[in-house]
Formats: sequence, C-alpha cells, structure tokens
Amino acid sequence: MPDYMNDDFLLQTETAKELYHDYAAKMPIYDYHCHLSAAEVADDKQFENLTQAWLYGDHYKWRAMRTNGVDEKYCTGDASDYEKFEKWAETVPACIRNPLYHWTHLELKKPFGIRGKLLGPDTAKEIYDTCSDLLQTPEFSARGIMRQWNVKLVCTTEDPLDSLEHHRVIRESGIDIAVHTAWRPDKAMAAEDTVALNAWIDRLAEITDMDISTFADYDDALRKRHDYFHENGCRVSDHGLEAVPGDCSAFESKSQIHAIFTKIRQEQELSPKEIAQFKTLMLFNFALMDWQKGWVQQLHLGPMRNNNSRMFHKIGPDTGFDSIGDYLTAEPLSRFLDMMDRTNRLPKTILYNLNPRDNEVMATMIGNFQDGTVPGKMQFGSGWWFLDQMDGMIKQMNALSNLGLLSRFIGMLTDSRSFLSYSRHEYFRRILCNLLGDEVEKGYWPKDMALLGKMVEDISYNNAKNYFDMTCPD
Amino acid sequence: MPDYMNDDFLLQTETAKELYHDYAAKMPIYDYHCHLSAAEVADDKQFENLTQAWLYGDHYKWRAMRTNGVDEKYCTGDASDYEKFEKWAETVPACIRNPLYHWTHLELKKPFGIRGKLLGPDTAKEIYDTCSDLLQTPEFSARGIMRQWNVKLVCTTEDPLDSLEHHRVIRESGIDIAVHTAWRPDKAMAAEDTVALNAWIDRLAEITDMDISTFADYDDALRKRHDYFHENGCRVSDHGLEAVPGDCSAFESKSQIHAIFTKIRQEQELSPKEIAQFKTLMLFNFALMDWQKGWVQQLHLGPMRNNNSRMFHKIGPDTGFDSIGDYLTAEPLSRFLDMMDRTNRLPKTILYNLNPRDNEVMATMIGNFQDGTVPGKMQFGSGWWFLDQMDGMIKQMNALSNLGLLSRFIGMLTDSRSFLSYSRHEYFRRILCNLLGDEVEKGYWPKDMALLGKMVEDISYNNAKNYFDMTCPD
Amino acid sequence: MPDYMNDDFLLQTETAKELYHDYAAKMPIYDYHCHLSAAEVADDKQFENLTQAWLYGDHYKWRAMRTNGVDEKYCTGDASDYEKFEKWAETVPACIRNPLYHWTHLELKKPFGIRGKLLGPDTAKEIYDTCSDLLQTPEFSARGIMRQWNVKLVCTTEDPLDSLEHHRVIRESGIDIAVHTAWRPDKAMAAEDTVALNAWIDRLAEITDMDISTFADYDDALRKRHDYFHENGCRVSDHGLEAVPGDCSAFESKSQIHAIFTKIRQEQELSPKEIAQFKTLMLFNFALMDWQKGWVQQLHLGPMRNNNSRMFHKIGPDTGFDSIGDYLTAEPLSRFLDMMDRTNRLPKTILYNLNPRDNEVMATMIGNFQDGTVPGKMQFGSGWWFLDQMDGMIKQMNALSNLGLLSRFIGMLTDSRSFLSYSRHEYFRRILCNLLGDEVEKGYWPKDMALLGKMVEDISYNNAKNYFDMTCPD
Repeated sequence: MPDYMNDDFLLQTETAKELYHDYAAKMPIYDYHCHLSAAEVADDKQFENLTQAWLYGDHYKWRAMRTNGVDEKYCTGDASDYEKFEKWAETVPACIRNPLYHWTHLELKKPFGIRGKLLGPDTAKEIYDTCSDLLQTPEFSARGIMRQWNVKLVCTTEDPLDSLEHHRVIRESGIDIAVHTAWRPDKAMAAEDTVALNAWIDRLAEITDMDISTFADYDDALRKRHDYFHENGCRVSDHGLEAVPGDCSAFESKSQIHAIFTKIRQEQELSPKEIAQFKTLMLFNFALMDWQKGWVQQLHLGPMRNNNSRMFHKIGPDTGFDSIGDYLTAEPLSRFLDMMDRTNRLPKTILYNLNPRDNEVMATMIGNFQDGTVPGKMQFGSGWWFLDQMDGMIKQMNALSNLGLLSRFIGMLTDSRSFLSYSRHEYFRRILCNLLGDEVEKGYWPKDMALLGKMVEDISYNNAKNYFDMTCPD
Repeated sequence: MPDYMNDDFLLQTETAKELYHDYAAKMPIYDYHCHLSAAEVADDKQFENLTQAWLYGDHYKWRAMRTNGVDEKYCTGDASDYEKFEKWAETVPACIRNPLYHWTHLELKKPFGIRGKLLGPDTAKEIYDTCSDLLQTPEFSARGIMRQWNVKLVCTTEDPLDSLEHHRVIRESGIDIAVHTAWRPDKAMAAEDTVALNAWIDRLAEITDMDISTFADYDDALRKRHDYFHENGCRVSDHGLEAVPGDCSAFESKSQIHAIFTKIRQEQELSPKEIAQFKTLMLFNFALMDWQKGWVQQLHLGPMRNNNSRMFHKIGPDTGFDSIGDYLTAEPLSRFLDMMDRTNRLPKTILYNLNPRDNEVMATMIGNFQDGTVPGKMQFGSGWWFLDQMDGMIKQMNALSNLGLLSRFIGMLTDSRSFLSYSRHEYFRRILCNLLGDEVEKGYWPKDMALLGKMVEDISYNNAKNYFDMTCPD
Repeated sequence: MPDYMNDDFLLQTETAKELYHDYAAKMPIYDYHCHLSAAEVADDKQFENLTQAWLYGDHYKWRAMRTNGVDEKYCTGDASDYEKFEKWAETVPACIRNPLYHWTHLELKKPFGIRGKLLGPDTAKEIYDTCSDLLQTPEFSARGIMRQWNVKLVCTTEDPLDSLEHHRVIRESGIDIAVHTAWRPDKAMAAEDTVALNAWIDRLAEITDMDISTFADYDDALRKRHDYFHENGCRVSDHGLEAVPGDCSAFESKSQIHAIFTKIRQEQELSPKEIAQFKTLMLFNFALMDWQKGWVQQLHLGPMRNNNSRMFHKIGPDTGFDSIGDYLTAEPLSRFLDMMDRTNRLPKTILYNLNPRDNEVMATMIGNFQDGTVPGKMQFGSGWWFLDQMDGMIKQMNALSNLGLLSRFIGMLTDSRSFLSYSRHEYFRRILCNLLGDEVEKGYWPKDMALLGKMVEDISYNNAKNYFDMTCPD
C-alpha cells in the first residue's frame, strides 16, 4: 500500500490541502492537557521497545484486542513484550474504521518514519525491530519525540499533594519546552470512600504542616497547595466528573458542611445526598480559587467508570472498562456555572462531554456565560476520550460552529499518557482543514485564504496560547 | 468575493438547481409562526438605520459578539447605533461556519441587494449607509419588505389579553398580506410566580368583565378570549414549554384543582407538583378549545431559559442567555397527546423540539397519533431557534423523512422578531432542494421532476396553506 | 424510470461496486432473528395475493398510510384486499426519502422481478396482478421465496409455552433451510398485569406437569421449557424491554421475591418497584440459563409501546402506535451485565437500542464486557425497527466502528413478520459496501481488497454463522 496515508491524507480538496500545508502544518503544538509522566520527562526516558512505549497502559488497544478475541494475558498479563506486540499486530487489520487504525499508522509514520507498510502479522517483526531500535536513539527519548513534533508546551496533571519536584527538575534542565502542571484535585472530593479520603486529608495535613479538623481548615490547606501550584507556574485545573453534582443546597448551612466534614474525618459513610453536597461545595471552592488567580478550569463530564467489577478487582481502574454514560447534565451544569457567575467570579472554563448527544447542550451552555471580557472565555472542549476520533471531532466542531464561534476555539489536546500521541494534533488539523476546505469549495464560505488560514492557525495554536496565562517559549 | 452566495448558493447538483429555480423559488411565503410586532405592521414602520432593523433585539448576534470578546455596551448597552454596528461587523468574519454568517449575507443580498461584498470592518461603513438609506424608502417599510419577499400570510403571536387592535387596523388597511394572530397563553399558566399570575388573572377579569374566583370561572373567561381570537381570525395557538408537564393526576380530583386555584388567587407559592398539575390541566383545556374550533396547536419544547441570573437581573429575558435543555419528554408527551386522542379530541398539532437528540422521539411521536383524517395531521416542526440552521434543518428533515413522510411536511417558518428574516425561507428551500437533488443524482430516488417538484412546492407553501384553516390571499 | 434501482443501486464508487458484487452479493443469508410464522413455513404457505403477503400485519405501511390521510378502513379495516393495495399504491410516491420507498421497490425487484416500474396509482393494478399471479407459483411459496434469496438459516421467535410442533414438522420435511426457534419469555415476566401473568403460569404448570406455588417452582418449570427449547435446537433468546429494570435490590432477600410471587399468584397488583425487581430477577435468571447452555441472549431496548390508547382498545398491539422512547439506560444496563459477569456467567449478548441517541452508550457498553474468549462476544445489534434504514444503519455502523470493531460485527437480521423482507439484507450489504468503498476511495483505509472483501463477507454471513452455536447447512 505505497500510497496509503500520504502527505494529503484526509485532505479531499485543493483548499483543504492549502489550508493544511500552508497554515496548519507549520504551527507548533501547545498541548494544554495531558497525562504524561513528569518523571519521564525529567528523566528524559528512553523506552526499551515499542511495546513499552505503545502498549503499556493503552486501554484503547486493550479493548480492541479483547474484542478481537485476544486473551487478557496479552493485554495486561504476563506475556512477553513481543508476544503482546504480535497480538496487537494481529488485531490492527481488524480495526479498519476504528480510530486505532489511523492513530497507529500516523504514529508509525511520525516519528518512526514507517511508510508504505501497514502493521499486521506479516510486518510485525520488522516494524517492532525498527521502532524499538529507534527508541534507543536520542531523537526518540521522551524529549526527543516532543522536539520532533515541535511541541512548545505541555501540561501534565497532578494531585494537589504532588511535590512538583519533577517539574522543578525539568525547568532547571534548561529544556526549550514548557512543561507545566495542572491541578487535579479529584481525590480531595472523592467522598464516596471516606477512609481513602480521610487518609488523603491526613497526608495533606502533613505536607502543609496544618491541623485539619474543620472544613475551614481543609479549605485553607487546599488553598496553600493551590498557591504552591501557582508559584510553580500552574494556571489550569482539571476535574473528572460523572455528572455535575449541582446540589446547591450545600450552601444553605455551614453547620451542615461541618457535619459532613466531621463524618469524613471519622470515616463514616456519607449518604448520596451528602456526597453530592460535599462535591458541589468543593468544586465551587476550587472554581473560586481558579478565578482568583486567573486560572482556567476544565470539567470532564460524563464517563461511567469501572463497569466490570470482576476486572476492576483483578487489574484496577483505567484498564479499559469505562464507557459513555447518559447522565442529565444541562440543569445542574447551568446552576453550577451560574453560582460563580452570579458574583462575577466565574473563571475561564472548558467543558468536555463524553456522550456526543450532549454536544448541543454544551455548545449552547458556554454561550450562557460568555461575558465579552475575553474572546471565547467559555470553551466547549475538543472531542475527548472515546470521541477523540474523526466522527467525534467533526460532531464537536459542527455543534460548536453552529451554536458558537469555531474561530475562537482553543482546539486540540492529547489527553494522553503516551509520548507518541502528538499525531492526534496532526489528525485534528487535517480534519479541521478538510472540513473547511470541503465547504469552501462547495461555496458555503468565501474562499478568503487569509481569513481561513488565520482561523486554522488560531485554532491550531494561537487561540490556546492566548487563552492560557502560561509562560511558553516563542 | 464576487462569486460568493450567487444564485446557485448551496445547490450542488443540476437536479438541486432545477428544483430550486423552477419550483421552490417561485412559491410565496406562508409564515405561520413569528414574533413580529403587529403594531409595526399596522404602522408600516420605517427603521431609522440598519442597527435598529437588524441588531435591536437580536440575541443571536449578541451571543456571537459576547463570544467574540465584545463588551455588553455594544450589545444591549448605550453605545451608539453605529458603534454597535461596527462591533457586529468586526464579529462577522469570526462567524465562519455559524449560521449568522449565512443569514447575514442572505439578508444583505435580499432585500438590500448587496452582492460581491462581505460584511467586515472594511465594508461596515459602506454597507451601513447603503442599507440605512434604503430603509428610508417605501420598498423597505415593514410591509415593503414583506412584499419584496412575496409574503402571503404571517401569524404574529399574542397574549390572550391582547386587544388585537393592531390586527384590526391591518385588516382595515386593505393590505394584500394576511396578518393573523396566534394565541399564546403562556402567562395564563405561569404558576411559578403566583403574584404575577394573579395580576394577570385580574386583568383578564377586567377585560372579560367577569368575576374569576373559581377555576371554572377562569376557564370560562379564557374561553371568552379564545372565542374573541377566533372571531378575529385566529386559528392557531402556541405554547412555550421547557418540558411537557404530563402529570395526569391533575385530573383525578376537582377539589384539588380548586385548592390550587385558590392558592393562586391568594398569591401563595405552589409546590413543584402543584405547578405541574396546574400546567397540565391548562394545556389540556387549551388543547380542547383548539380542537373545538379546528385550530392547530403548537408546542415548543425543551429550552432552558435565563441561565445567567446576573444578566437576567440586569437586562431581563430573551437577551441571549437561554440554551438547550436535556429534559426527558417521550413519556409525558405521549400521555399528554393521548389524553386528548382518547376521546377523539386531539387537535392538529405541531411539535417543535430544541434538543436535536429528541428528533427521533418527535418524528415517531407524531406517528402515534396520525389518524388518517387529514394528511400530516400531526407535524414535526422545522428546526427551531438554535436549530434553525443547515445542520439542524437537515437533521430534522432526515428524521422526519426516515420516520414519517417528508412530502406532508408543512415546512419553514421564521419564528422571528425581525422583518429581515424571510431569507430563512430561501435558506430552507435551498437546503431542501439540495438534499433532494443530491440523493436523486446518487440514484436514491427516481428522477421524476414532476413528483419531486410538486413535493418541493408543497413543502415550501401548499402544505402549510392547506393545513391551517386561515384566510389567505391567492 | 428505467434506470431506477439498477444493479449498482446505492453503490457510488468503483470500490463499493467491487465489494458488493464480488463479495457481498454471493453470500447466503443467515437471518438469526425474525418473527416469521413457523406454521407458515411448515405449511409452505402460498399467499392469495400481494396485499396478503405485503400489507397484512405491516404496521410500517399503515403508519405511512395514516400519515398520508388514508382512513383506517384501508389499513386494518374491512376494505377489500385490492382497495387496500390501491391506497398503499397512492401512498408510495408520498414516501420519497422514507425507507418504505426503498423496501417497496427492492421487494418488487426481487423476488417479483419488477423493473423499470415504480409503484403508484398508475401501475397499481398491473403490479398487483403480476405479483399476485406469481404468488400462486411454487417459487413464491414461503419456502420458495426463502430459496430464491439463498437463505440458509432463520430463527423464528416463540413463547416458552410453544410446543415447537411446527419446527418439528419443518425439520422432518427435509428442507435445506435451517429453521430454528428463539426463546422469547416476555410474557413470563410481564408483571404489570398479574391476571394475565397468573394465567400464563397456570398454562406453564399444565404443560410442564408441575405444581407452581413458589418462585423456585416457577424457575424450575421455566428451566424445563428452556431445556425443551434447547433439545429442539434453540440456541438464542430474545427479550423486548422498554428499559433495563436494573433494580438489583431484588437479590437482597429471598423472602421478598417469595412475597412478590405470591402476590402474582393471587392476582394482586404489584407496585412499580416490585415489578422492576421481579423483571430484573427474571431477566437475570434467563441470562444464567442462556449462559449454562451456551446460548446468545438478545436485548431489544427502548421502545415506548401502545401510545394511542383509543386505537389500542380498538385493534390491539403491534398495529403502528409504538414509538421511540428516551429512557436512561447506561447505568442499569451496566449493572445488569455486571451482575452476570461478576461470577463469569455472562452469556454472549446482543444489545439493540431503538433510540439512536443511545448508539454511543451501546457501542461502548459492549466494550466493558468483551473478555477475549470469543471475538465479538458482546455485540451491538444492527439498526432495529424504526432504525432499520440507511440513516439508522449508517449511524449504528459508525458508532460501532469508532468505538468497537466493525470487522467482528454479526451484521443484519430482518426482525420481520414477512417473507418478503430478505431484501433488507441486500439493502444492508449495499450500504455497508458503499460506506467502505467511499472511505477507501478517499484514502481513509488502504485499498486492500482481500482484507476488505473478507470483512464484507464476514459481516454479511460468516461472523453470524460462527457466533451462534446453531446447526446450519453449508
């Protein structure tokens, strides 16, 4: 297949090609949300082989393999790295029409330079060896790969208890890539398990050298960590939520909050209502911290996690047993955002939904709170997780375009644990350019290449760079 | 951009062009639902300038401007008309892929005759002056614009307390456009605010010269107004609802209704359940009135209104802070329609949904109550509000086509407050013709131009004209 | 219209044509779920005329006719067969863009051989006579039609009380088509009407020659029938559900179940909660039976039935008054599947949803329980009922492709009561090939015809044949 995935991949029109090659392709990457390991960047990690760089921790591939009838041994089990790779290579041809097929070959093309070859049982060995060899070279260290992709900035995601030591090491290493952290306090509000939460609070007390016996103490200690993150360059938070709690009655009574917090400290179980109240209050307080410091808050909404309890007990979370939920979110989300806006304390916010049927709710929700202070203050985030594929991205961009302003979109992010995921930015840009190019050639929009080109550059890089208040090399 | 938006705009195939130019374009406009001011038609209003005709009251444009970082001063604030226009002109190029971009240039093209020019900062002054000058001429009075568009009928929307005085003036003016009213009794059932509702009932009592102390009195007084609207040519009602109340237990006990009504008259707050019961009963009673007189009822379902309480308190409702809700509607809507159908008293009904994820529920819901008495008795209304754009219209027509009969569709309406919105009919017709033309050329449907042309004419005009029992000039 | 619906119908690219003609078209039909009458297969029924074969029992056509303004007399009433056909023929041209238009002409083309003619008032008589004459010939008996379509296997659907006598007759007739039954115990769990359920249980007691006074007895008796079905070759079950009950508290207490069952036997009404508990337990028990015997379970989720109570009382269920519901299903469905998986007793399962907005929930739900034992153990079923059309099938395949593996899809089934519905398989295959061909020619996937051709063959036939453990002629 010598022609598969050539330079014009996905670009069906001349306008699309021009937009991609002359505008999009040259823009650097500003990856404002990912789950890379800061330690691996600090250490400038070299992977031993392609399996370790590509299959370890990749629950997308595991799901596909299980669907293809591959035994767990070759996913998360004790098969050898090469055996695992072989099973993946067998599965790839079965992935036609799945984004894994595109991601796989985009990643093999760049950075590995594999062209004219498709991954399958016949090419598995050769591709494995070639890539594993390359992974030993300096160009393929963690930072090497990032440099190949012209990455200017990444935000990793850390717990408030994180020392940010790796980030300090990275900063002091004189690296020309900005590696910031994002504040992810999910554990600070995980009141479903008060034993774990209580232990977390104990560690917080230790780190902050504070007594935490009241909710006010807790809030103070968290603010201390928020300050610490800020001092270390953090300007963005992130929250993973099934649905927005939205139970505003939490704010009716301080004594109620005190009672809930006491229960947590005593490791008593909370009622669903108490959990919702606590979460809402925490989320609200975090939002106010973000607002005070000019941070951006991100809300990732709607997954249904750990559906397979058998596998959860065997191999834990984030192993490919999560799926898309169907929670009702419009009202609680509206109330939640309004709580902050009411007193003019709503931070810049990015809403990500996991069920595409919520696209129109999200795309109109942001419009309710655009206040004219900043272009695109409220953002509808790019197709995420299961939706980080052509269909998902197009639907997100269509909803955003029809119900908001695509031109103000801060665009793509990898949300990935892998250093090989930067081709998602390439994928996104090709899809964006193809979408615009197709419609321009149909006469839907004027063929004003300066305007369209600027729009593509903005969505690829400039909008995000302007949106976040983070230091970033030029 | 001399070629942008030429005569074949949106028409990608020869069949589409033929269908549009030979069939759709020549049909008059039957705008069976809008929010024009009857007073402005009665006065044959001339607008002072383009801002007054175009930006005043246009919350779509305000939302886009706010998203683009424009200060409220230039939306609803005290900036001058030209300053506001300038800010809008700056925002237009940022609207690529938003329907505002199409609406804007369609409206500039007709009636204003602006061609080969795109609105933007460089053309703002010239376009503003040209259009504002034209707005002083008789061809651009309220009625002048309607005549340019070959409008045969419009239905404005009035509260039951409206005197319909303006409609009388219009009728007596000998105008060749039928200007009817639609009965919109939302305030009569707005039991969330019993103070306002009680005041409304007092005014009703005054106008009808009746004592209203029981629910039966209330019903009688409303029927009197319904009769009055009927005498004045009204044949259609309209209801704006978040979700269908659907609580049928309201009908179990007369004493319960009496108790609720007494609370309303005493300005006591109602429980959510009581509000739902009251609304359901009101909606049911209105439907029966409509049925008795052969009217059509319209249900607009699913917005989530006034999400931004800060702006609501500052500038009130309908200013661009509403969005799409995610209410569950299938069961209550089915029960509601069945309540009437059960005794064979279900009026002709048009269902409009705001969340496109409800399209399939709506498109199959109408099928449950098609009774063969009238073709297309139950209608799934055209893409509405946020969905009044290419994507929204196509999805609505696809759902209707796949799950019902597109050929029986009564088609487009503006739902607009502006005299410049008739290009929405042109937009709709181009989209319809393009959809059909594309599929015919792909061989999905036989190229029988007589059949397809008639279908296009019917959907553009004839179906609506036959559906409503309203006088209309030939 | 000599060219309408020629051999390349729906196939827009050369790749699509090659995939269809060289791979898909030659595959036999494996119709693993339908509602054909086993009696009619046993008797090798000859229909008297086209109306009897085509309009009797076809609620899709009735809905379209009612929408078109046709009186009930011509749908389910006492008009003559030809009068009914005439009304249908009048309605067909109004069905442009509805799947009925395609189904109708596909069915006229094969098996009836009608080409170059469209059904309408002008051709009604000729087409009626031609087809009715053909229906008298052996090639157009029930089995004759199946043979014309190269059907290898069908699964009809029977109640646990069914004697399976017709299936025995069919088997013994030496027919070269496998005609199996599917176990559909909806009535065994229909606890909404305890009078009817109690009567059903009485008949079960009689048939199994057992005393059924406890829930354990009931379970035993049902297992006896399940065994009987198994002995008769049954390997698949089917459940029609509005939403998955999912109330797992049913399992907390045996005495509670005993109490519910006693109420049923005493014909006392159950509370909604009790109904849900009972249904969940039943569904769970049936799933375990399926798992023990290696059956496949099918869950059909989401219709809202019998919406029109006036017509329900007049002409009963399944007459065209059902529609698409908007139930929330993600959580209960996840819990339900997990209940079985937890102890490694989850049978192979096919999930069908009726509301397309649930596609992504379903497509990711199956991924939660793929365990690698069998390729595609968990299946997202093909577009069903209202969604059994181009748009519905494409959306289902897109969701499945993006979120799972299309290559492991077991593909199409008719779900039909009519012997003339096999063209749905042709329709599906054309749509599948067109989808793939289009994207391959756009360069989305490599043009590897061996790989793609195999994928098409697998989805058309092989995957289903390998998935089910049913005897089937080669």
